[in-house]
Amino acid sequence: MRTPALLAIDWGTSNLRACLLDADGALLEHRSAPGGVMSVKDALFGAALLKLCSDWIREHDCALIASGMVGSRQGWREAPYIDCPASIAQAARALTPVQIDADCDRLLHIVPGLRTTHPSGRFDVMRGEETQMWGAQLAPGRCCVLPGTHSKWAWIGDGGTVERFQTFMTGELYGLLTRHGILGRLMVFGERRVDDFVAGVKEGLADHAAATHVIFAARTAGLMGTIAPEGLPDYLSGMLIGIEVAAASAGRSGETAVKHVTLIGDDELCSRYELALEIAGLASDRATQDATTRGQWMVARAAGLLRAMA
Amino acid sequence: MRTPALLAIDWGTSNLRACLLDADGALLEHRSAPGGVMSVKDALFGAALLKLCSDWIREHDCALIASGMVGSRQGWREAPYIDCPASIAQAARALTPVQIDADCDRLLHIVPGLRTTHPSGRFDVMRGEETQMWGAQLAPGRCCVLPGTHSKWAWIGDGGTVERFQTFMTGELYGLLTRHGILGRLMVFGERRVDDFVAGVKEGLADHAAATHVIFAARTAGLMGTIAPEGLPDYLSGMLIGIEVAAASAGRSGETAVKHVTLIGDDELCSRYELALEIAGLASDRATQDATTRGQWMVARAAGLLRAMA
Repeated sequence: MRTPALLAIDWGTSNLRACLLDADGALLEHRSAPGGVMSVKDALFGAALLKLCSDWIREHDCALIASGMVGSRQGWREAPYIDCPASIAQAARALTPVQIDADCDRLLHIVPGLRTTHPSGRFDVMRGEETQMWGAQLAPGRCCVLPGTHSKWAWIGDGGTVERFQTFMTGELYGLLTRHGILGRLMVFGERRVDDFVAGVKEGLADHAAATHVIFAARTAGLMGTIAPEGLPDYLSGMLIGIEVAAASAGRSGETAVKHVTLIGDDELCSRYELALEIAGLASDRATQDATTRGQWMVARAAGLLRAMA
Repeated sequence: MRTPALLAIDWGTSNLRACLLDADGALLEHRSAPGGVMSVKDALFGAALLKLCSDWIREHDCALIASGMVGSRQGWREAPYIDCPASIAQAARALTPVQIDADCDRLLHIVPGLRTTHPSGRFDVMRGEETQMWGAQLAPGRCCVLPGTHSKWAWIGDGGTVERFQTFMTGELYGLLTRHGILGRLMVFGERRVDDFVAGVKEGLADHAAATHVIFAARTAGLMGTIAPEGLPDYLSGMLIGIEVAAASAGRSGETAVKHVTLIGDDELCSRYELALEIAGLASDRATQDATTRGQWMVARAAGLLRAMA
């Protein structure tokens, strides 16, 4: 095996994944554990990490880097937010080191989150997605979309900086409405129903400016029988994604509308977005699957963490 | 006491209220019970009604009418929806009679719900609010707003018909986001914070076309400390109401925007909407408090139920 130079940890709200990389960023080995930041009891983050890969840490004198919600207020240590436009070099200068535990003095370096300011003055934040975007190595001017609980639309600037971005609560709203709300009561889950998803996307695109109104259609369509109970989950999913695509791609005043986006994320979710983007008349492509580890390796390299190990 | 001519029952999702009215619709007595349609076990609606007012039903040979979710699929008996534009006379012809129970052959008449069709072809529905609007006796051309879990904006036509309406899931979204979602985690509930409510209304009005994005500001404002934890509930409430007001008052293509609305509902909620409407530059007034019973009496009269008792 080639010499491991970096242990790269992707630690989100619901997942923990660790990758052993060589000095060139090539993947040597990987492991993952279910349950992310939210499942760590009594803030025993060091113990959780050691449980997954104490052998790696003991055997290899490599640097350790982490990105994602592990750097949030609910995570291991709150890492700062750096302001947009934000580059890898800036992130590399703002890593938050944390000692693994009392018996292990090795340091894990947490990547900072990103903060952007919308025209009205309100802030927006991300944590983890910035590293994926850097790892995707997108060209300046490109718009990319990271679907999820809190979906992110981001615009890439010169030198691969994250110029600005916008969060949509699409995934969380879908979860809340279906699990805890009245819309879920008429739904039967399981089957994938593409036609109902498409119908939802069209409603969402057409009426995104009245989003909190249009989603009520997932109740009336069920009551009136225009959509079968098995199709209602995809109908609502389509509406929420349609609302997001229409609102995000419209462009702010004085800007041109988005015509092409790069999707970064898991297959199932990206395929939903691909279809919604196509219906909206937007072209899309997908980033490489290893964007996260690639980004972590790029930040570690910029921070000089790899040289220190050489 | 004047002779009771009508027992008017307002039976919603979370409340049951019974009013004894004379032939002119004047209120003689009223009672209410906590727990509405959702708290009735094993569909024993007759028993629940008799528990509240079996003495009235026994002592007075009056007609019985009910409106609200009692006529929904989850209620006592599913009453039909009549299509907009919908008048009192049409509702009076479409009452759904239900026998109180095996030992009591008196009939309760359930008022139908209303259905409207939006330009895209999707349906919208209401149940109970139509009776309140008829009872408010609004002039043709008037727009009225019934704030709540599922807020309704309705337009009144000739002869007091409900011409068309639009539902906004404002109240339900507030409940889901604060009780079950990530936005609630940074919030401290209790205090009313008008300034933060106003800030929220302004964000919602300005950016209603990206509703599923703008509400994320209730998280970032908490993370960044620009709004105190005690102010975050009102900030989110303001945003959701601002989003609703901007979307509903804009008017559909070819229509003039709304300039004045009549609010129908409880005091606390109406005062929030009054403030949001004022910030949006809309004038508002309030309907009489007894709109529900007045509407039920008007439907009963149109159905000839009062004459039958005379």
